[in-house]
Amino acid sequence: MSGFFGVFPYLVSPIKANGEVDRVVLAELVEHLISSGVHGLTPLGSTGEFAYLTQKQRVDVVSTVMEAARGRVPVIAGVAATTIQDAVAQTRTYLELGVDGILAILEAYFPLTDAGVESYFRAIAAAAHPTPVVLYTNPQFQRTDLSLPVIERLSHVDNIRYIKDASTNTGRLLSIMERTGGRMQVFSASAHIPACVMLIGGVGWMAGPACIVPRQSLALYDAAKQGDWSRAMELQRPLWRVNEMFAKYSVAACIKAALEMQGFAVGNPIAPQQPLTHHARDEIASVLKEVGAL
Amino acid sequence: MSGFFGVFPYLVSPIKANGEVDRVVLAELVEHLISSGVHGLTPLGSTGEFAYLTQKQRVDVVSTVMEAARGRVPVIAGVAATTIQDAVAQTRTYLELGVDGILAILEAYFPLTDAGVESYFRAIAAAAHPTPVVLYTNPQFQRTDLSLPVIERLSHVDNIRYIKDASTNTGRLLSIMERTGGRMQVFSASAHIPACVMLIGGVGWMAGPACIVPRQSLALYDAAKQGDWSRAMELQRPLWRVNEMFAKYSVAACIKAALEMQGFAVGNPIAPQQPLTHHARDEIASVLKEVGAL
Amino acid sequence: MSGFFGVFPYLVSPIKANGEVDRVVLAELVEHLISSGVHGLTPLGSTGEFAYLTQKQRVDVVSTVMEAARGRVPVIAGVAATTIQDAVAQTRTYLELGVDGILAILEAYFPLTDAGVESYFRAIAAAAHPTPVVLYTNPQFQRTDLSLPVIERLSHVDNIRYIKDASTNTGRLLSIMERTGGRMQVFSASAHIPACVMLIGGVGWMAGPACIVPRQSLALYDAAKQGDWSRAMELQRPLWRVNEMFAKYSVAACIKAALEMQGFAVGNPIAPQQPLTHHARDEIASVLKEVGAL
Amino acid sequence: MSGFFGVFPYLVSPIKANGEVDRVVLAELVEHLISSGVHGLTPLGSTGEFAYLTQKQRVDVVSTVMEAARGRVPVIAGVAATTIQDAVAQTRTYLELGVDGILAILEAYFPLTDAGVESYFRAIAAAAHPTPVVLYTNPQFQRTDLSLPVIERLSHVDNIRYIKDASTNTGRLLSIMERTGGRMQVFSASAHIPACVMLIGGVGWMAGPACIVPRQSLALYDAAKQGDWSRAMELQRPLWRVNEMFAKYSVAACIKAALEMQGFAVGNPIAPQQPLTHHARDEIASVLKEVGAL
Repeated sequence: MSGFFGVFPYLVSPIKANGEVDRVVLAELVEHLISSGVHGLTPLGSTGEFAYLTQKQRVDVVSTVMEAARGRVPVIAGVAATTIQDAVAQTRTYLELGVDGILAILEAYFPLTDAGVESYFRAIAAAAHPTPVVLYTNPQFQRTDLSLPVIERLSHVDNIRYIKDASTNTGRLLSIMERTGGRMQVFSASAHIPACVMLIGGVGWMAGPACIVPRQSLALYDAAKQGDWSRAMELQRPLWRVNEMFAKYSVAACIKAALEMQGFAVGNPIAPQQPLTHHARDEIASVLKEVGAL
Repeated sequence: MSGFFGVFPYLVSPIKANGEVDRVVLAELVEHLISSGVHGLTPLGSTGEFAYLTQKQRVDVVSTVMEAARGRVPVIAGVAATTIQDAVAQTRTYLELGVDGILAILEAYFPLTDAGVESYFRAIAAAAHPTPVVLYTNPQFQRTDLSLPVIERLSHVDNIRYIKDASTNTGRLLSIMERTGGRMQVFSASAHIPACVMLIGGVGWMAGPACIVPRQSLALYDAAKQGDWSRAMELQRPLWRVNEMFAKYSVAACIKAALEMQGFAVGNPIAPQQPLTHHARDEIASVLKEVGAL
Repeated sequence: MSGFFGVFPYLVSPIKANGEVDRVVLAELVEHLISSGVHGLTPLGSTGEFAYLTQKQRVDVVSTVMEAARGRVPVIAGVAATTIQDAVAQTRTYLELGVDGILAILEAYFPLTDAGVESYFRAIAAAAHPTPVVLYTNPQFQRTDLSLPVIERLSHVDNIRYIKDASTNTGRLLSIMERTGGRMQVFSASAHIPACVMLIGGVGWMAGPACIVPRQSLALYDAAKQGDWSRAMELQRPLWRVNEMFAKYSVAACIKAALEMQGFAVGNPIAPQQPLTHHARDEIASVLKEVGAL
Repeated sequence: MSGFFGVFPYLVSPIKANGEVDRVVLAELVEHLISSGVHGLTPLGSTGEFAYLTQKQRVDVVSTVMEAARGRVPVIAGVAATTIQDAVAQTRTYLELGVDGILAILEAYFPLTDAGVESYFRAIAAAAHPTPVVLYTNPQFQRTDLSLPVIERLSHVDNIRYIKDASTNTGRLLSIMERTGGRMQVFSASAHIPACVMLIGGVGWMAGPACIVPRQSLALYDAAKQGDWSRAMELQRPLWRVNEMFAKYSVAACIKAALEMQGFAVGNPIAPQQPLTHHARDEIASVLKEVGAL
């Protein structure tokens, strides 16, 4: 299988008190995840707090990840903007840093027509060409979503080859697969059960929790990949509690707190986001222990 | 395996112009479904337009189904009310008709507290005892939903043994299974991918589409039951389009139109619900032909 | 000014433990409100828990109100159904009891097209003719709402002459007035500021809180009617806290608790609705005292 | 009356094809509005497409407005950010440019606790001190809203003295006024009926439509201010159609199209936002003609 597949953790963005990216901590995390066997890395996803970073911080995150990864695994960087001009500029910047793919995220303040949505993603794809683009859709946090007809049309753009759907609606993933006939591969998000997405034809997952349970995620991926579904479900059941925590608590706060417990000094989520309460930390610690991640 | 499992079609309710239940047509449909091999029957689910029927019509639907089924498969009748008093009265009526289980549906006009929700389902279970109760939850059409803590508490009531969750959130089903530790079995709804729900431990599905694709549904169930997941997905893919139609068009209108095409004179949905347009009928006919159901 | 105008309290429905309507208490409440000067009475609105009553209970409520009112003020009875057949039957029943108007409420389980919505209200108007009909719209508790184009079309039906809009969007009321050019009069709901609705051209209000603050409501109405807007706002400000309570706590529970405090033994809301907590009762008592209603 | 009051148009942001702010056109618009008599100007509100501008473009918009206004009317600049650090930096930049007030807008990607929301606005107020701050709340376009308790607490910060609530819920404005007891003045948004907001105690409005109907807005304000409510409603009725257009079509697209018709070459909304269709333009032209604004 060529192209992207497998477990791509969404990386957190450790920011120091002075506003600088903590390159040392981020590089340590990258090293740890690669040595755990992850198939790729995704800086600047939701978990990476892209919406809370300056453009300078975003570039520093991506360049740190590229340097630390040293080409051992593909790096897919998140591009997120409200305007086409900004999205294209970000895309070019990350391509110059050598990224292997672009995760294309649409931010919106006012509602957009389907034509507006489509033009945004086409512009990113054109700027990235021939580097592959992963569409990102998240109806929970975004005002404007990708409709099935828009996804179908975009699947004919030759370097738009993946989609990561962060809804909780797993049936929508099957609808996407059926409509795009192999032109678009689907990655699961943390709100789906990865074993189910693999069963219906997904190629892996891009998700925050994989940052804190990389080995467990890989074991699950391998079982599913081999078609050993009873083993996959054995591994999936306890892991599901990690995803439940992630859905229950604020995304970045949750993963940052868990990584701190695991020895990575990634700090707090960016203000005015609040750190987790002691009660929440205890609950997360307990879940991590159950799955052998603490 | 004792208890309920497998494919339970939600039956439509054919109503004549004079307001009477069309007992002949309903009995024909029951005979057809049983001879197709379904594991059980569910009158008065959403597809059965319970919300549009008088209590007299509801009783006539259940008694017709009981007489036509002649004990060959279990019949689970839908109880739906806004008040405890009405729900308990309905439960007793259907038990006297000999039903094998109760599908318990909460209707609400004002929001309810968790305590109010819980008291409603406990009252039905007490009235039905020892007949088993299936909880029904549908965040799309209902104002008040069952929270996970309420479901967990209700799972300790000895005859509340099943749940049918009609959200589109498949992860919630796994959360329910993990929390109720075998005390509560999960049926899939049409908004979930049945193959996925079977993979994570579901025992079957209760859904409108099974009315129009009973044999195809059973083949899928059998493949999943045998753990032949690649066969299950082969069968699941084309069937998913039936569920997509069901989600796209008004539920009762869609299934009634499809049954009419298949030769069952079930009529139109109850006014002011509107029959499907010609365009919609054509689309449904095309999907039915693809899966060999027309 | 002919036709309906002024303050129409939504009456609660007192139900005894054995399920019978408490005719004595309801008649006392009617007497109290008429002697307080209200312009009319509305049994079977939201506050009247129509969604929780059997058809027998509904009829008993309306007949009790008719007998107690003895023609001194107009009575507008709520008709609420999911089907046209049921709505028309209710309409005829209440007309036989001599009601002066119909408040037409659409209940829905599945979404309806505009054509379906329109056919429902047209059928009620035809059955009620020439008795006037008040359209009721409540996007908060209902699944299907009246769009502006549907309202405009219905305003041409000669006995559809009023609308009561229970959204919180006061601008929508002005849009309705502008589009229906005097063919349709607008009553405020409790979620609007009555003084504002009177300013833009409303003819009064139909609301639960008027049950518990009838004299205060009438003083406000009179000030607004006379165009004494500074006096109206003086009266409106303290009264607004009553509406805030009503929005904060469950509607029927709130008004029933307040009436109990005022000496009307109307009982609790119908189960599984829960009575108010002591804390909530204290808060309501405090608000009633501030406006001289306790 | 000291402080801010009256009609504050939300200015559009004209951007040239090369991405530069069109200072000439923006200055012309400022001159036109001031000569029409507006009480103040608000660059970088929703209508100003703040969410689509780079920080460089934002600064250019504010500096252009300051230079063109030459101190004749107060200028309140919009600060909008997801992080406290960014919001504080923007605030300081605009204060250096000499703005008279800050309109404080919270953007969010993840949900925030009340404590997080409160800390964001307190930080802006501290950075702006003693320059007055206007809180901005818009539940329609924002993920995180200001709750009444947070508003009440913030009203005790001495330079947080105004709020502009862009919900459609006019009752909420009265609740805010009652809770903040004169410490916080309320501006209406375009989704409220300005005459109603003035009646209940508002001090004016900040809204996009005032850009295209400044004289008409001032006449309405003056009538309301003098307590001539029947004159106010005469002026309000036709003007309401302008607000309806604004709600119906995309906000910036609508105002930019109308200004183009009036001779201000402000261009299109920023891509991927789409310009209005011909049909929409015709509808807007017709409404503008009716109120004498074209």
